[in-house]
Amino acid sequence: MEHGFSGKKITVLGLGTMGAAIARAWHAAGYQVTVWNRTASRAAPLAAEGAKVAATAREAVAASDLVVACLLDDASVGTALTDADLAGKDLVNITTSTPGTARDRAEWAAGRGARYLAGGIMAVPPMIGVPDSGAYVFYSGSPELFAERRDALAVPAATRYVGADPGAAALHDVALLSAMTGMFAGVSHAFALMRGTRVAPKEFAALLVEWLTAMAGYANGVAVHLETGDYTLGVTSNLAMMVRANETLLRTAEEQGVSPELLGPFLTLMERRLADGHGDEGTTGVVDLLRR
Amino acid sequence: MEHGFSGKKITVLGLGTMGAAIARAWHAAGYQVTVWNRTASRAAPLAAEGAKVAATAREAVAASDLVVACLLDDASVGTALTDADLAGKDLVNITTSTPGTARDRAEWAAGRGARYLAGGIMAVPPMIGVPDSGAYVFYSGSPELFAERRDALAVPAATRYVGADPGAAALHDVALLSAMTGMFAGVSHAFALMRGTRVAPKEFAALLVEWLTAMAGYANGVAVHLETGDYTLGVTSNLAMMVRANETLLRTAEEQGVSPELLGPFLTLMERRLADGHGDEGTTGVVDLLRR
Ligand SMILES: NC(=O)c1ccc[n+]([C@@H]2O[C@H](COP(=O)([O-])OP(=O)(O)OC[C@H]3O[C@@H](n4cnc5c(N)ncnc54)[C@H](OP(=O)(O)O)[C@@H]3O)[C@@H](O)[C@H]2O)c1
Ligand SMILES: NC(=O)c1ccc[n+]([C@@H]2O[C@H](COP(=O)([O-])OP(=O)(O)OC[C@H]3O[C@@H](n4cnc5c(N)ncnc54)[C@H](OP(=O)(O)O)[C@@H]3O)[C@@H](O)[C@H]2O)c1
Repeated sequence: MEHGFSGKKITVLGLGTMGAAIARAWHAAGYQVTVWNRTASRAAPLAAEGAKVAATAREAVAASDLVVACLLDDASVGTALTDADLAGKDLVNITTSTPGTARDRAEWAAGRGARYLAGGIMAVPPMIGVPDSGAYVFYSGSPELFAERRDALAVPAATRYVGADPGAAALHDVALLSAMTGMFAGVSHAFALMRGTRVAPKEFAALLVEWLTAMAGYANGVAVHLETGDYTLGVTSNLAMMVRANETLLRTAEEQGVSPELLGPFLTLMERRLADGHGDEGTTGVVDLLRR
Repeated sequence: MEHGFSGKKITVLGLGTMGAAIARAWHAAGYQVTVWNRTASRAAPLAAEGAKVAATAREAVAASDLVVACLLDDASVGTALTDADLAGKDLVNITTSTPGTARDRAEWAAGRGARYLAGGIMAVPPMIGVPDSGAYVFYSGSPELFAERRDALAVPAATRYVGADPGAAALHDVALLSAMTGMFAGVSHAFALMRGTRVAPKEFAALLVEWLTAMAGYANGVAVHLETGDYTLGVTSNLAMMVRANETLLRTAEEQGVSPELLGPFLTLMERRLADGHGDEGTTGVVDLLRR
């Protein structure tokens, strides 16, 4: 309880692009931040700004009751914390994990006497610590830890608690990241099609952003289908027409010299669903075909 | 020039979900609309609202100087117009096509004495004729036709003219549809992951819409990379980290019993780019790998 900073002390393990942004946000908000990074040199900028730098992860953990880990993957969390004393600590792990790994890590932390909260960061680093940037973190695990540390956790980004199951945050996180990955794949294909034309990439990007934003509401239609079990509700773009349009997408890729590999798998599933006799539905049936 | 409607006459060929919405928009705006559909019964609702119904496509074409085709695909346009007299007509074909097919169809129309404009509709039918719905149509081909018919064309949806090359509208259209297809694939995968959990699809859809909207700006970053040739500019999510996160996406799919087939191809290209030594870039390099 030195310097009267009790309750405003926090340790951040990991100063990659994301960890550094998060540590900086707490420092800027007046927290006494202790940082540690495997490669010590990466701590220099934060040290210059006034953060405490610990020589080892063990020492960093000892410095605060609230310990945040933002490392590359779950394996690095295990490695970094091997010999740290976690008894009585609140460990908040915002390293991207699978739901299963998050549950295992929660058990591991409980075995070492720590309360545990798993987090999934829905933001890129420049959004961290910026009010109204839209950045947020899914949290799941100990409801007590979340309730008591809520204000501190809300400093770098908004918080969304999704339940006591430590795997829930990771599941939400990975589901959104997976959807984004699909969007990025589509965007990559689209830019490849436009290459070699006179359309400036920036101009085309503006069209893409507007179009994808307008079409994101597709997810709401899928939700209605999944909740009712009726996949034809409100369908204005029927599968039969879309499968025909898919031929146009594939032939255009061929005309433009672009590999169809990113589009192929979804189009194939649409065709399978159509072949199963669902031409009057939209594309929701693909969700069923993905479940094993 | 009957009924003094000259200049406000229009023919619409094809009364599928989209064609009907478009014909209805012109009718509502006071145009004298003549419609034709292969399956005649689909014209009944529009006839009841006051549109003229032609018995054949030839007759429909004869009824107006401005003829709009909105059929399933380019082949149906050829079939429908086989024996129509197009001399002196303005043919606007808003059927989804490839750039190459659009160019061929433009030549075919010129050979029959018509001015030609190709269109690609960026909207779903409920957006048609609704002010500020965001609906628009890419047009390319005859600049004179576009200039003279601009007001009429702007009735069902906003217009965006993208050049004299009749293939340009199709290329823009297909590129945006391809990007959307990727997003839909990602959304399908995400819903499959969440299935069997207690999270209500509608609640999850709201998270998806918000997240995809926030992340659509990714396209702007790719554009900067493609314009400068420097794929590391402004990168805050490096490829090395993302490829590691990809393992988490794949393992989560496995844990949840979801096929990875929709994610796989993009992740594979990210890995290839990383293996080529580009770990400090984002994912823009995938665009290069898609070009043959
Ligand atoms: N950047 C983003 O856009 C973003 C967005 C959402 C979530 N995330 C998640 O945030 C976490 C960190 O991402 P980042 O962008 O900060 O990644 P990064 O810039 O690549 O940094 C990785 C961090 O992990 C450390 N590390 C790697 N292996 C380690 C090991 N075996 N033992 C100890 N430390 C190890 C690195 O230390 P060294 O400096 O010694 O290598 C560094 O601190 C990841 O789980 C990522 O998925 C990132
Ligand atoms: N719906 C959308 O969300 C949407 C969005 C953007 C663009 N589009 C494009 O708009 C066009 C029409 O789509 P839609 O949604 O209206 O499709 P749809 O509801 O499936 O209607 C297809 C239309 O094409 C006609 N047709 C099919 N084969 C034909 C043939 N061989 N000869 C003559 N007519 C034929 C059909 O006539 P019958 O009634 O006799 O079968 C019907 O009028 C397509 O190119 C589509 O890609 C649609």
